[in-house]
Amino acid sequence: MTDHFEPCPAGARPEITLTELQQLIRKMYLEKDVARGIEGTFMWLIEEVGELAAALRDGTKEERSAEFADVLAWLVTIANIAGVDLTEAVARKYGSGCPGCGRFVCTCPDAGKP
Amino acid sequence: MTDHFEPCPAGARPEITLTELQQLIRKMYLEKDVARGIEGTFMWLIEEVGELAAALRDGTKEERSAEFADVLAWLVTIANIAGVDLTEAVARKYGSGCPGCGRFVCTCPDAGKP
Repeated sequence: MTDHFEPCPAGARPEITLTELQQLIRKMYLEKDVARGIEGTFMWLIEEVGELAAALRDGTKEERSAEFADVLAWLVTIANIAGVDLTEAVARKYGSGCPGCGRFVCTCPDAGKP
Repeated sequence: MTDHFEPCPAGARPEITLTELQQLIRKMYLEKDVARGIEGTFMWLIEEVGELAAALRDGTKEERSAEFADVLAWLVTIANIAGVDLTEAVARKYGSGCPGCGRFVCTCPDAGKP
């Protein structure tokens, strides 16, 4: 990825890796994020989670999409400040199957944590 | 990506696109997720957000990493149920720079929404 998501040939679509997303948000916001710190940034995450809840209840498809992007961006922001690599985090937790049952199609009991 | 994150040659590391992450979580959990619905699934997201807050306050690096993965996984789960493509969502909201100022290094006033 360069400075932005490159236009793709007709029929293709640009894919975004978690690493690229962390880099994009780091470049765009890191200076402000570090100055604000984890606690202040966490409040922004929670505000966006609330907006996502509202959009899921009665938003348009476009509003839902925008709120998912915002929650994801704030989660990535906090990961950047905390020095957590989301690619590693996901690979470690979910890369060998469901953390509960170890299967790639989860067979955990429905009553348990899914 | 096949069924899991493939081992990489020494020095390399496996990258994960948002599309692959949505597919992995879809394959692993979609049947349960759809049965639970958005509202029930949202409560799991919030529980994990709380666990992330606790890990950020006094968790180890490994605990923080695991909680980031969990929050991300539940966010992806809800996006799957809601039919939202996170790649499109991120590209639309952040692919042309900061939604506030339009720059790739944000120049919005610090007092405003960052």
